[in-house]
Amino acid sequence: MADTQHSMDAMAELNDLRMSEEARPLYEHVKRFIKETVEPMYEEFERLGEGKTDIWSYAPGQLEALEKAKDEAKKQGLWNFFLPDAETGEGLKNLDYAYIASELGKNPLASESMNCSAPDTGNMEVLERVGTPAQKEQWLKPLLEGKIRSAFAMTEPALPSSDAKNVSMSAVLEGDEWVINGEKYYISGAGDPRCRIMITMVKTNDGPDVNRRQSQILVPLPHPGVTIMGPMHVFGDPDAPHGHMHIRFENVRVPKENMLLGEGRGFEISQLRLGPGRIHHCMRSIGAAEKALDLMVVRGMTRQAFGRDLIKLGGNLEKVSRARIEIEAMRMMVLKAAKAMDVLGNKEARVWISMVKAMVPERVCAIIDDAIQLHGATGVSQWTPLARMYANQRTLRLADGPDEVHHMVVGRAETRKYTGEEEDPAMAAVWRK
Amino acid sequence: MADTQHSMDAMAELNDLRMSEEARPLYEHVKRFIKETVEPMYEEFERLGEGKTDIWSYAPGQLEALEKAKDEAKKQGLWNFFLPDAETGEGLKNLDYAYIASELGKNPLASESMNCSAPDTGNMEVLERVGTPAQKEQWLKPLLEGKIRSAFAMTEPALPSSDAKNVSMSAVLEGDEWVINGEKYYISGAGDPRCRIMITMVKTNDGPDVNRRQSQILVPLPHPGVTIMGPMHVFGDPDAPHGHMHIRFENVRVPKENMLLGEGRGFEISQLRLGPGRIHHCMRSIGAAEKALDLMVVRGMTRQAFGRDLIKLGGNLEKVSRARIEIEAMRMMVLKAAKAMDVLGNKEARVWISMVKAMVPERVCAIIDDAIQLHGATGVSQWTPLARMYANQRTLRLADGPDEVHHMVVGRAETRKYTGEEEDPAMAAVWRK
Amino acid sequence: MADTQHSMDAMAELNDLRMSEEARPLYEHVKRFIKETVEPMYEEFERLGEGKTDIWSYAPGQLEALEKAKDEAKKQGLWNFFLPDAETGEGLKNLDYAYIASELGKNPLASESMNCSAPDTGNMEVLERVGTPAQKEQWLKPLLEGKIRSAFAMTEPALPSSDAKNVSMSAVLEGDEWVINGEKYYISGAGDPRCRIMITMVKTNDGPDVNRRQSQILVPLPHPGVTIMGPMHVFGDPDAPHGHMHIRFENVRVPKENMLLGEGRGFEISQLRLGPGRIHHCMRSIGAAEKALDLMVVRGMTRQAFGRDLIKLGGNLEKVSRARIEIEAMRMMVLKAAKAMDVLGNKEARVWISMVKAMVPERVCAIIDDAIQLHGATGVSQWTPLARMYANQRTLRLADGPDEVHHMVVGRAETRKYTGEEEDPAMAAVWRK
Amino acid sequence: MADTQHSMDAMAELNDLRMSEEARPLYEHVKRFIKETVEPMYEEFERLGEGKTDIWSYAPGQLEALEKAKDEAKKQGLWNFFLPDAETGEGLKNLDYAYIASELGKNPLASESMNCSAPDTGNMEVLERVGTPAQKEQWLKPLLEGKIRSAFAMTEPALPSSDAKNVSMSAVLEGDEWVINGEKYYISGAGDPRCRIMITMVKTNDGPDVNRRQSQILVPLPHPGVTIMGPMHVFGDPDAPHGHMHIRFENVRVPKENMLLGEGRGFEISQLRLGPGRIHHCMRSIGAAEKALDLMVVRGMTRQAFGRDLIKLGGNLEKVSRARIEIEAMRMMVLKAAKAMDVLGNKEARVWISMVKAMVPERVCAIIDDAIQLHGATGVSQWTPLARMYANQRTLRLADGPDEVHHMVVGRAETRKYTGEEEDPAMAAVWRK
Repeated sequence: MADTQHSMDAMAELNDLRMSEEARPLYEHVKRFIKETVEPMYEEFERLGEGKTDIWSYAPGQLEALEKAKDEAKKQGLWNFFLPDAETGEGLKNLDYAYIASELGKNPLASESMNCSAPDTGNMEVLERVGTPAQKEQWLKPLLEGKIRSAFAMTEPALPSSDAKNVSMSAVLEGDEWVINGEKYYISGAGDPRCRIMITMVKTNDGPDVNRRQSQILVPLPHPGVTIMGPMHVFGDPDAPHGHMHIRFENVRVPKENMLLGEGRGFEISQLRLGPGRIHHCMRSIGAAEKALDLMVVRGMTRQAFGRDLIKLGGNLEKVSRARIEIEAMRMMVLKAAKAMDVLGNKEARVWISMVKAMVPERVCAIIDDAIQLHGATGVSQWTPLARMYANQRTLRLADGPDEVHHMVVGRAETRKYTGEEEDPAMAAVWRK
Repeated sequence: MADTQHSMDAMAELNDLRMSEEARPLYEHVKRFIKETVEPMYEEFERLGEGKTDIWSYAPGQLEALEKAKDEAKKQGLWNFFLPDAETGEGLKNLDYAYIASELGKNPLASESMNCSAPDTGNMEVLERVGTPAQKEQWLKPLLEGKIRSAFAMTEPALPSSDAKNVSMSAVLEGDEWVINGEKYYISGAGDPRCRIMITMVKTNDGPDVNRRQSQILVPLPHPGVTIMGPMHVFGDPDAPHGHMHIRFENVRVPKENMLLGEGRGFEISQLRLGPGRIHHCMRSIGAAEKALDLMVVRGMTRQAFGRDLIKLGGNLEKVSRARIEIEAMRMMVLKAAKAMDVLGNKEARVWISMVKAMVPERVCAIIDDAIQLHGATGVSQWTPLARMYANQRTLRLADGPDEVHHMVVGRAETRKYTGEEEDPAMAAVWRK
Repeated sequence: MADTQHSMDAMAELNDLRMSEEARPLYEHVKRFIKETVEPMYEEFERLGEGKTDIWSYAPGQLEALEKAKDEAKKQGLWNFFLPDAETGEGLKNLDYAYIASELGKNPLASESMNCSAPDTGNMEVLERVGTPAQKEQWLKPLLEGKIRSAFAMTEPALPSSDAKNVSMSAVLEGDEWVINGEKYYISGAGDPRCRIMITMVKTNDGPDVNRRQSQILVPLPHPGVTIMGPMHVFGDPDAPHGHMHIRFENVRVPKENMLLGEGRGFEISQLRLGPGRIHHCMRSIGAAEKALDLMVVRGMTRQAFGRDLIKLGGNLEKVSRARIEIEAMRMMVLKAAKAMDVLGNKEARVWISMVKAMVPERVCAIIDDAIQLHGATGVSQWTPLARMYANQRTLRLADGPDEVHHMVVGRAETRKYTGEEEDPAMAAVWRK
Repeated sequence: MADTQHSMDAMAELNDLRMSEEARPLYEHVKRFIKETVEPMYEEFERLGEGKTDIWSYAPGQLEALEKAKDEAKKQGLWNFFLPDAETGEGLKNLDYAYIASELGKNPLASESMNCSAPDTGNMEVLERVGTPAQKEQWLKPLLEGKIRSAFAMTEPALPSSDAKNVSMSAVLEGDEWVINGEKYYISGAGDPRCRIMITMVKTNDGPDVNRRQSQILVPLPHPGVTIMGPMHVFGDPDAPHGHMHIRFENVRVPKENMLLGEGRGFEISQLRLGPGRIHHCMRSIGAAEKALDLMVVRGMTRQAFGRDLIKLGGNLEKVSRARIEIEAMRMMVLKAAKAMDVLGNKEARVWISMVKAMVPERVCAIIDDAIQLHGATGVSQWTPLARMYANQRTLRLADGPDEVHHMVVGRAETRKYTGEEEDPAMAAVWRK
């Protein structure tokens, strides 16, 4: 790709996709912890939640079970290791974290048990890099300790988020306070009763530089001006109690000091949380594809029709093969993008990140869809995880920039090889969330 | 296709896909009735249902509103016209009904308002053709009058329904009663509190002729041995109160007289309900695709990104074109299959029916998926009908024989041109509802 | 589609896709003539051509054999029936001609034997409609008699022909002569030694109206200023002696009277030859797909691997099914587009024509490709017609407007339903031969 | 994949896809040699060949120019480096050779200039591993010196080569001679006047073990019983003078000593030449895809239609992006398969090899096809290399086991994870050249 612009050595380095020696013990430890602590806790958690009537709260005992696992993780030193190259964390390379993320993806509570769950991870990264000492004390500390949870309010219902210039929620400085008005939706995690802080993308000026109009402001929750209108469904599923909420802001007043980094620097901050989240998402997507393939093969070998195993009928075995080939190709691409971030930095690696973001969820959807088909009606039901997995992956094709925007980024990188033109900053700004 | 086996004249006739002159007034009448009566009723019905706490019942006033519309339909003579060539009905040709079905597909209560909704339509057809006078009196009459509703229990959770030989629920004659044991699932309509009769596919012998082992028995509801275990979800949606139920039969005893047509003639009956249902489904699917295309175009022309209408960005306009081309091609194929049934009969038309069943839902899914993508996150939410439409169409690819089985039927018809071999009766038996 | 803009009756009429009673005897006669006269002649023609050293000439006896068949066709009244609704021809409907075209497609010399071969057909239509009496006497008469052949010079190597405004070859009036300079390529039929006249698209002014800059001028061949640079290959095949020639025009002087219709009316003439040619091409494409499917099935049933017929391995039978479904869907679409031309006229039917042009060759390529795959290495060799058929169909996706332009036409027709805007005349001008 | 069956360390090692330090100088040297020596020679070679009348011979001076380049390569030590881990060669790892192969793919005479061209490479490997001292002296020595060329006769016109048991050409021992009768086709390189030896796959017994019926015998050329019937075309191209020949063997007598390794050990030998050839092919395919993408981007940025660069119209930029993503994914897969051969051995790496063989040519065809479409009619002509590149890649999908067989290998590897069953030896035997 951008090979010509970098030294031969850096490019050669990009193809060393081994996990580092240093990360191996952590990787093994995480796997063991999931097996020994998270999985039993998850079973108890699910059992406690059965028959719960208010889907937007936790059942008695649920949070206690989760907290106990978190304490154990802290005790074992498996905590906050998501933070890349930070004094507060393990300083894991993106490549190493990509390997670990694929394990975290195997249990719905694994990430949270080790304080590595989205959107807290991105929010903590931002606070750690650009927060003032007071902001860090008030919000980063309890987040790092796992005492509270957080949200990131970016997408708006009235504007296509594919174009990063499209932010309309306004914040106006009145005296010592920012006054915020507008609407956001698909705010993940804002349904959780423990959610206490929300980083909010707003428009603070109408100046000529379209990339300096945005700011990011901290809004504590609950807040009198913040109304949660309801959950956005995903193929009919509200994903409670986490929730992807539709939120209205009416004269939401927060102290001037809640501005992050400075007025007009919203895009700049987006650059910080840029790529890693996508790599982690995509690595977990590959885990989902592996799961779908497993289910497809087991189903195909344990059911018969017309006197033969389903897997041997028609083109089913070729579908299995194509799924395996796609999975291995996606895995290498995600690892390479992670490595590119380690070697070249997030900004230089952005085309690799767009490549995996445009590639992975679309193909994982297709693999899950094939698995659904082989399961017959059971495939779309609640009896397998496939329908929910499909809904998740389908949504990823729309989140953090839809596929089309990432294809534009990749396509334009090719044309720039011929023109030498600079990248459109608005396009670069896609790299947020 | 089978052109060589039929007279030139019949084949020429197949390409006259015009609605008949006689059906036009009915077609116009149905359109008018939907607009003037069904649509206002549906709005009231929806309003009355808001805030309902038991999703498995109707809210006060809902059924009254529906019944009023049904009375009006009866009064206007718009009743039971689904019955093809029957003394009890309008004697509509399949081709004419296909045109009308596309209108019925435009409102969720249109079919029921005119007593033309599945699975009642298929059940009434069967009872009318093979029922005894007593069975007709007891079940067909109230169904034709719209007094009760019905279900058809065929699919089982433990066996791939792609192979029609795969029925395991047993019925054993003990004295004057059949005793039924087993499980069925995805029994549509069995959740409705008005459901009073269920046609049940069972296995009544283990004889050497695999196509004579099945029987169809009438089971009245509610019944002490029939336990509704719960609804099967479709991408997380229970579709209440209609419901696609999971049902257990434990020593369900019904009188000997409840057997339809005769022991071992289950497949034979399936032939009767064979094709028309699929054609109607597919015609409604085309309506769904039209709706998705409309939504896609409107969204694309009313949202902007990067300074242009979404519809003009990237390959979006080509997606619109491909959707239009697919829709027109599918429409002609459905009409031709309907015509083939009229001219050649259900049995001779079976390859045409398989062609549309294998073709339509798969492609409509793809069109809806493109429409979702253009809507961004809103596309998977409850704010547009797209997610639910997708789930419905996706399920159709698994119901009434999965795509793969219909492709087998079509593929083997090609090979038989060279071999002259007879069709595998088990494959023919796929042709059930 | 455009349904709303036309009367209900016309729209209903569109779905009557039966061949007319009047055309049936001609259809049967053409089939008989091909079998009894053309096929034996073609065998002799091929045999005479074996070992020919100059691929750009005919071998002794070849043209004599062809002329004899043409005389026989004339005698039997099977001559020039391509001319739609013309006093000079049979006045066939497009729908009827579409049926006949599928038969003409079955032998490489069938069309020419009955004086119905491209590009002569389009050229004769144009001359008949807009030619002066002198032009008709000099060129139309011998063409209608099959004495000479012709070419149509439109595409240029230096400009994308997807945009009809892109014509650069200039014609300047000097005294009583037009002086033409420039280059054209892919001029089909210009390699034939009998080619005597070429209709040439040129630019005659630089005025502000981009749709009035073009003109069409008659250039007699051979001509001292016209140099045939060589044949354009199609996947390595020069298609001699017909040839798709690359031609240079250097100070080509022709009398002022050779201008067709008038200076600046080139686009207008293009409208005349607009749609029919595409329908005929597409009908022949469907014949090619049928041939590929036949070959695929026969191969699959006569070869074995791993102990089973090839056709039963993996997804092969599903490929057969998908091919059959595509073929039937395409056939109905082509017939409907032909009917739309008959009922609505060429201009109103243009979206239907674009639909089939964008749909058919792409899918036929895919069907032939599947057939190639089932044949193994033999599939790409000269031992089956598949490789050449693929090359032909692949080329059709680029000729007469590439797929992308036709998708634009169809997509914009959808958006115009909402805007009411008029069609871009430059886009309309795509409708040339 | 097979990860579970191997040590963690070996699996980790598989992801180190860097070229080795030792190979870098050779890689750079090869690149320089191609630029400085091969490219000028190739231009001269082409110029000398212009106007050649006998396409099956070399023009005066052509071979001399080639020999001069070969001498120079020998002098510079760039000779026979294809031989993996052999005393006679450079002992290059497959991974390193994969990198170099992508450079060799850039000029049609690069491989031959350094004595690394197929099918000689596979033939030399086999002779080096299983040849007797006499066979080595007579055939390996001149091949290693680049004095003669060779062929490998495996595929037969009458049997699908997808099933390796399908070999019918017989060899019968009569006295001291094997007598061979039968037909082979697509024998690459057999058209070259310098071809002197052909390794021939024959059937030598009808015993019960279907994997012990085959043998490989050396047949010197020219030979009185060997008749070259003619070239097999690839999309109309005979690929002269290399040629993919159709050959008849009539009572071809060769000394008993010409048997390789031993009677009935034909499959065993196939294992030796197994994977590397496919990796090299696929690496060159990726080079072809890069070339197609380059051409597509340049064309799209230098042509305009409707007032915009072609690349900006419709979905073209997304096609560019998808091509880039595919290319990078394929590159990583090929490198990983090469590494798997280095770390696990050819046999253990066979599923990786099948993955790339089933993945790469199919996708490269699609990329080239998109490039053709963007070029308009020029895309299928002789004015760009695209049409020939397409034909080559399309053929690769049929050679060395068609895609379907490799998908079966990959699919069955997945099912074996659950069953533990041994691989079908006949399937394993697909792994021949």
